[in-house]
Amino acid sequence: MLENMTRRGGEPKTVTGELGLIQWIRARARKGGAGPKVGAGVVLGIGDDCALLRVRPGEEIAVTTDLSIEGRHFRMDWHEPEVVGHRTLARGLSDLAAMGARPVAAFVSLGLRREMASGSRDAWVKRFFGGLMKLAAEYDVPLAGGDLAESPVVLADIVLTGAVPRGKAMRRSGARAGDAICVTGELGGAAAGLERLAAGVSSQFAVDSEKARLGGRDLAAALRAHLYPQPRVEQGLRLRGAATAAIDLSDGLSTDLAHVCQESELTAEVDEAALPIAPGATLEQALHGGEDYELLFTVAAGRRIPRMIAGVRVTRIGRMLRRRARRPQVTLKSADGSVRALEARGWEHFR
Amino acid sequence: MLENMTRRGGEPKTVTGELGLIQWIRARARKGGAGPKVGAGVVLGIGDDCALLRVRPGEEIAVTTDLSIEGRHFRMDWHEPEVVGHRTLARGLSDLAAMGARPVAAFVSLGLRREMASGSRDAWVKRFFGGLMKLAAEYDVPLAGGDLAESPVVLADIVLTGAVPRGKAMRRSGARAGDAICVTGELGGAAAGLERLAAGVSSQFAVDSEKARLGGRDLAAALRAHLYPQPRVEQGLRLRGAATAAIDLSDGLSTDLAHVCQESELTAEVDEAALPIAPGATLEQALHGGEDYELLFTVAAGRRIPRMIAGVRVTRIGRMLRRRARRPQVTLKSADGSVRALEARGWEHFR
Repeated sequence: MLENMTRRGGEPKTVTGELGLIQWIRARARKGGAGPKVGAGVVLGIGDDCALLRVRPGEEIAVTTDLSIEGRHFRMDWHEPEVVGHRTLARGLSDLAAMGARPVAAFVSLGLRREMASGSRDAWVKRFFGGLMKLAAEYDVPLAGGDLAESPVVLADIVLTGAVPRGKAMRRSGARAGDAICVTGELGGAAAGLERLAAGVSSQFAVDSEKARLGGRDLAAALRAHLYPQPRVEQGLRLRGAATAAIDLSDGLSTDLAHVCQESELTAEVDEAALPIAPGATLEQALHGGEDYELLFTVAAGRRIPRMIAGVRVTRIGRMLRRRARRPQVTLKSADGSVRALEARGWEHFR
Repeated sequence: MLENMTRRGGEPKTVTGELGLIQWIRARARKGGAGPKVGAGVVLGIGDDCALLRVRPGEEIAVTTDLSIEGRHFRMDWHEPEVVGHRTLARGLSDLAAMGARPVAAFVSLGLRREMASGSRDAWVKRFFGGLMKLAAEYDVPLAGGDLAESPVVLADIVLTGAVPRGKAMRRSGARAGDAICVTGELGGAAAGLERLAAGVSSQFAVDSEKARLGGRDLAAALRAHLYPQPRVEQGLRLRGAATAAIDLSDGLSTDLAHVCQESELTAEVDEAALPIAPGATLEQALHGGEDYELLFTVAAGRRIPRMIAGVRVTRIGRMLRRRARRPQVTLKSADGSVRALEARGWEHFR
């Protein structure tokens, strides 16, 4: 656990080493509005063997963990430290959103090379926590603990805890035949943004208004979708009770919809023409791209589907169907009415 | 999150790749008695965006995370995969023990090199989970989720969740001047065992009775202390309400006692002659060794201290004192009555 202690009776003179770094994080977590609030979720934050959390009577606790590893999930030459911090937390918050859980506390286990842990105000680790805590403050989720270790490869494991009324969490397994399939936001933007980064476009196009003007709105939007995804926490909370099943689009529509089919023991048909493809993205990126962190959810056939939820567009993209012999798990229906199997071609490790 | 899904409508033919591996883990978690039990802690385990947990009314949730990284916390040539799995889980359970929390659920995020994720019954990853789940079954804690990723360095981040009655958790900050300082078990054994491993002694001496006979009881005991530490969960539960403060001895007595001093705003004096030094260990190893995963706790001055708690020896090793100018944070009192400062020389990253 992250611990704060100044040893041998005095305050540490430097902010180098594990202890100095932990003290800096603890102070930063407090200052940034992302520190523990006694009685309101986090009872005890950074500084002991465990953090202590409280939820309301009748609530269940949702827990998710996600590893981000240098070279696999981010690259030091493409992703600024703030971006790595933002994306690390966003992944965990998006899992809570998919269950309809309100965030309670975040924990991060961080592996760093020795030279990254010490020193100046613009040290990698400080910029990483800067990005993470900015998003944490926006979503009002305190950083309540974690771990630090020396590692030859940079890595961050994010743990999110949330709370949801007993029995009310949205699961992958709840969809029924005939349900409409819906998504929030737009698809493929994150993949399009990653493609531009890989092609050598500076991530500054996402945030520098002059560059954004030169590169065009589509480029700036795609880069932002990849670099600064917005987890749909508020949308998830509002969908609770209305959606029959939900999942977040982390691995790609084709893969994540297959998860819902598998757990709900159904098949699914997607209308190609209905897909809300992000500006600058291709159909392939919308189908398989991943990392959009939008929500995919199912709604009972007769139920009205709102056009917006908490400021974010909602689109009906298909329907859940019964399993049948020789029917593929997910099919794509083209504008001309032809139907083909949609292979799960999203992200999978060790493949 | 660990997800279980067989895509494209059928059962997977192989157990390679992320999905096959997750399915194997999910089945193994169920079979081993460490699977989710509906209604009794884990409501929803491996297979969705989040796991769902329940605690009893009036309980707080304890959360701890601990990173273990190849080359830092374990070595492939010294530590069998079962040992890495055991030690990974033991670290987390020990943090719960220090708070007096009962384990509710474990999560593990695992980074593996590509070739380690697939294949035969004796694959590294299967033996890792074998060791982890054996201990999980002994402590009746279900594996409820986690993450898997490809990584150039092997790593495991363990997350433990536990439950403790509101306001009853033991904290580092609760010690008062005059309190007795106690420890469970013996100290320095893990460091002595590690020293033997580093000197080339086979870890088989810990478990092979013929080898143990040849190497002597002290060697076998020291190796076991390092390879298979037993977290003091039951002892922690029984200490709740009796101890004023507690911490687990993960970094070493000198360092961990300094943490209690820091958080309780006190100093401490240790009686050298009282230390329960493990057979085969040195005084230095008992003072600074770390990884014994015993509990250090403080007890009000007048209170009776049991000689054993749940089958484990308890030893009074010193006392908490007020802070005074020029008094070191922790002092060591020798048998001849002389007192010297005890420097915190336990484990610290990035030092």
